Amino acid sequence: MAKQKKAPRPKAETPKGFRDYFGHEVTMRAEMLRKIAGVYHRYGFDALESSAVETVEALGKFLPDVDRPNEGVFAWQEDEGDWLALRYDLTAPLARVYAQHRNDLPTPYRRYAMGPVWRNEKPGPGRFRQFYQCDADTVGSGSVAADAEICAMLADTLEEVGIARGDYLIRVNNRKVLNGIIESVAEGQKRDAFPDGVSPQGSGAFDELKARLIASTDAVMRTLDKFEKVGEAGIIELLGGGRKDASGAFIPGLGLPHYVVHGFLAFLHAKAETNEATLSRLREVVEYSNEGLEGVDELAEIADLLAAQGYGPDRIVIDPSVVRGLGYYTGPVFEAELTFDILDDKGRKRQFGSVAGGGRYDDLVKRFTGQAVPATGVSIGVDRLLAALREKGRIDAREVGPVVVTVMDRERMAEYQAMVAELRQAGIRAEVYLGNPKQFGNQLKYADKRQSPIAVIEGGDEKARGVIQIKDLILGSQIAETATHEEWKDRPSQFEVPRDQMLAKVREILDMHGL
Amino acid sequence: MAKQKKAPRPKAETPKGFRDYFGHEVTMRAEMLRKIAGVYHRYGFDALESSAVETVEALGKFLPDVDRPNEGVFAWQEDEGDWLALRYDLTAPLARVYAQHRNDLPTPYRRYAMGPVWRNEKPGPGRFRQFYQCDADTVGSGSVAADAEICAMLADTLEEVGIARGDYLIRVNNRKVLNGIIESVAEGQKRDAFPDGVSPQGSGAFDELKARLIASTDAVMRTLDKFEKVGEAGIIELLGGGRKDASGAFIPGLGLPHYVVHGFLAFLHAKAETNEATLSRLREVVEYSNEGLEGVDELAEIADLLAAQGYGPDRIVIDPSVVRGLGYYTGPVFEAELTFDILDDKGRKRQFGSVAGGGRYDDLVKRFTGQAVPATGVSIGVDRLLAALREKGRIDAREVGPVVVTVMDRERMAEYQAMVAELRQAGIRAEVYLGNPKQFGNQLKYADKRQSPIAVIEGGDEKARGVIQIKDLILGSQIAETATHEEWKDRPSQFEVPRDQMLAKVREILDMHGL
Repeated sequence: MAKQKKAPRPKAETPKGFRDYFGHEVTMRAEMLRKIAGVYHRYGFDALESSAVETVEALGKFLPDVDRPNEGVFAWQEDEGDWLALRYDLTAPLARVYAQHRNDLPTPYRRYAMGPVWRNEKPGPGRFRQFYQCDADTVGSGSVAADAEICAMLADTLEEVGIARGDYLIRVNNRKVLNGIIESVAEGQKRDAFPDGVSPQGSGAFDELKARLIASTDAVMRTLDKFEKVGEAGIIELLGGGRKDASGAFIPGLGLPHYVVHGFLAFLHAKAETNEATLSRLREVVEYSNEGLEGVDELAEIADLLAAQGYGPDRIVIDPSVVRGLGYYTGPVFEAELTFDILDDKGRKRQFGSVAGGGRYDDLVKRFTGQAVPATGVSIGVDRLLAALREKGRIDAREVGPVVVTVMDRERMAEYQAMVAELRQAGIRAEVYLGNPKQFGNQLKYADKRQSPIAVIEGGDEKARGVIQIKDLILGSQIAETATHEEWKDRPSQFEVPRDQMLAKVREILDMHGL
Repeated sequence: MAKQKKAPRPKAETPKGFRDYFGHEVTMRAEMLRKIAGVYHRYGFDALESSAVETVEALGKFLPDVDRPNEGVFAWQEDEGDWLALRYDLTAPLARVYAQHRNDLPTPYRRYAMGPVWRNEKPGPGRFRQFYQCDADTVGSGSVAADAEICAMLADTLEEVGIARGDYLIRVNNRKVLNGIIESVAEGQKRDAFPDGVSPQGSGAFDELKARLIASTDAVMRTLDKFEKVGEAGIIELLGGGRKDASGAFIPGLGLPHYVVHGFLAFLHAKAETNEATLSRLREVVEYSNEGLEGVDELAEIADLLAAQGYGPDRIVIDPSVVRGLGYYTGPVFEAELTFDILDDKGRKRQFGSVAGGGRYDDLVKRFTGQAVPATGVSIGVDRLLAALREKGRIDAREVGPVVVTVMDRERMAEYQAMVAELRQAGIRAEVYLGNPKQFGNQLKYADKRQSPIAVIEGGDEKARGVIQIKDLILGSQIAETATHEEWKDRPSQFEVPRDQMLAKVREILDMHGL
């Protein structure tokens, strides 16, 4: 009979851009999310877990205009024809949920959500196609009190997970102020040209300028977003006549007049020593714009509301140089930065940077219902915040393994199991070695790989004498690394105790190591 | 200019078979999973969170043999040609993870995993296409001590989440015993026919029977699985000559001889008063099969190991009538059942039933590496267990909302925010009403919808007098429902206290309601 051809073995690999998380990585994230959820809950936010799968239609941003609508998302077609996709963030599902359930939900609706999202993007180093987000949003309130509350909650959250006061700063800006500048600089020029009042005949050029500026708001926003990258000189070039980049290629500028560019720079630099001084500078920049002045008033109100709750500018500060997100949001925007230094890949000091951001976006559910619903919210970068906590030593890099009860005599497995049962019932993490017990060395190697603090040993001799051996593996490895022979003799890391003192001795050793 | 045709509004709907989880549903599940993870961790199991997306190749069971390999899974093709899919359980990913990382993982590898899985199946009432699983497995140990440990851990887990001892029972069976019956009945018949020793000439018919029985093991298993549905008489018919179902249609039987059918029934009915008696009955049934006797020995050892740790048959019991899963597993199988009665849809009493199951499956990673790796594990039905806890009153059906500070005077928002800040800092869930405050009635309606226990009110008059009103909404609604007019006068549900006693009074009311 001919040999049947075997199917080739499948590759044991995660798909490209995906990864697995092990042990400590999982539990530390779960613990951090639990603390965050605790703060959100205390602020009156309710949990929401929407389905990971949405219709492409409901997700919206990626509506099909090609045969396969998977630009940026993982999407597939159902047999009956509907396109489904994995959610790419937690905000688009919130819009769908609110539109779907709005008659049953309270208004305003405060909700938090945490979980993985998926992006069908080219993976890169440290950039994965599945990652966690952790959001809180208030839907249905146009009050800036809702924005202020989000900022206060963000400060509380950072402190709750272990970022000390002084190690973070929440910076607040307002999209309306930026809109106001565009309006105000044009208006200001007009007034300068016609100090005695506007001549309807002569103002045409300025009205044209204003229209052109407003039309280029998005381009301005994208340019200001490059502030950190290209610096002030770069911004001046990009808003004005254009700029040669590092490769020598010429990037055309937006061609804005000098005094307009000046207005934007004044905005970026408006941050002063106190919130009051900042706000007063901003008022000057937007003096001829109602929307701009409204934006400054909102910032002033946010600062007042926060001050009344004890959140001063040492924690939450008005700072117009926060540009990120101005393009997306419609009102106040906020960003939480960690202010301590870390060393980058090349050993240079740099600030840790942003771990959370958010703002007001008032068109959340309009797509579904036709009605504008105001909303404001924040999203925490879970992985970055975890990295920060690790950096600050707030979470242990290594997990503590279980106490390992070794198997010296396979026939007495029941007795070894009774030992771990005793330890576990006392709340101590413990296990019996369940591999092949023949080679004792393998059992200790296993304990080492598990980062076990203690090994318990009961051979036939110990059994006969009613004692057990308890090996302090942490002390043992310290001694092995650093001690001289004399110290080694003086500081035994293995103890013989009567069987009925096992629990007490294990406790003593764990306590000694602060475990 | 012609009006631009608007795109139709997207439907705000979850895809068919998916749902959203709100508030309490989310937090209660998270809390239960946290407790379960705590027990698993104490037993030495490490967390694992594998990616939700796997290659179809790695998932295996659903390998492409058609154009679109999405039978049972949600799958899609990457631009470069790989087929990806959402995981349909947590075991297939464990196999991939262990094969991929086996050089870095300890052996045995104890891991737990919890999270959503996805099934591309026809949704039905209460049956969703995304649901939670919560698994613990020991990979790389062939010892029945690993199986016993899983059973002990399952008992601890159920008690930890709030199922009282006596309200659950973990029943243990062994696939090898079932295999042994098939071997043993054939062998037994042969020995009866040739009491003085086997005649090589005459034994052909029995060898044929044995081969036929072994070939029909899967069909036998599927039939035994119908025990609960069709009862003993039905099983006899289905294993034997066939059976007419309720509609009158004839279902052909497996055509097994009567004495074989009798063997299987003896197996199903082997459960006796004590484990010892059960095991001794099983030994009789499989007396001529080495595999069967090995299976009984394993069950005996599991019972001994558990007894040594204090888990008696009141919690974990040998019970051969556990048939579910016998087709899938290769050794010991276990099932946790809740033994208390509930009322079904039609008001009839019935047992709550199974909430967890598992067993030994020894071919986990062979697909990937060619090497057989023994493994054993358990999976908890998260949603069923939550339903059970709700049934037993172990988790509140209703969530307690935040204390709501009402807004009587929009200009004093900062003061109201300061009030909630004070409450939150004392750990009390609280919020300011952030909707339009004009109609006070809406604020109280909101508090009602949020299930708020308390509303705090400070109008201009109260402010002037330095007092606030505190409304006990729980008491208020109790009184509204049940009290007479006199009682209503005697038991005021609204209290006026000085502003600086707000926190104390709120605490007092919450304490009174046990919140």
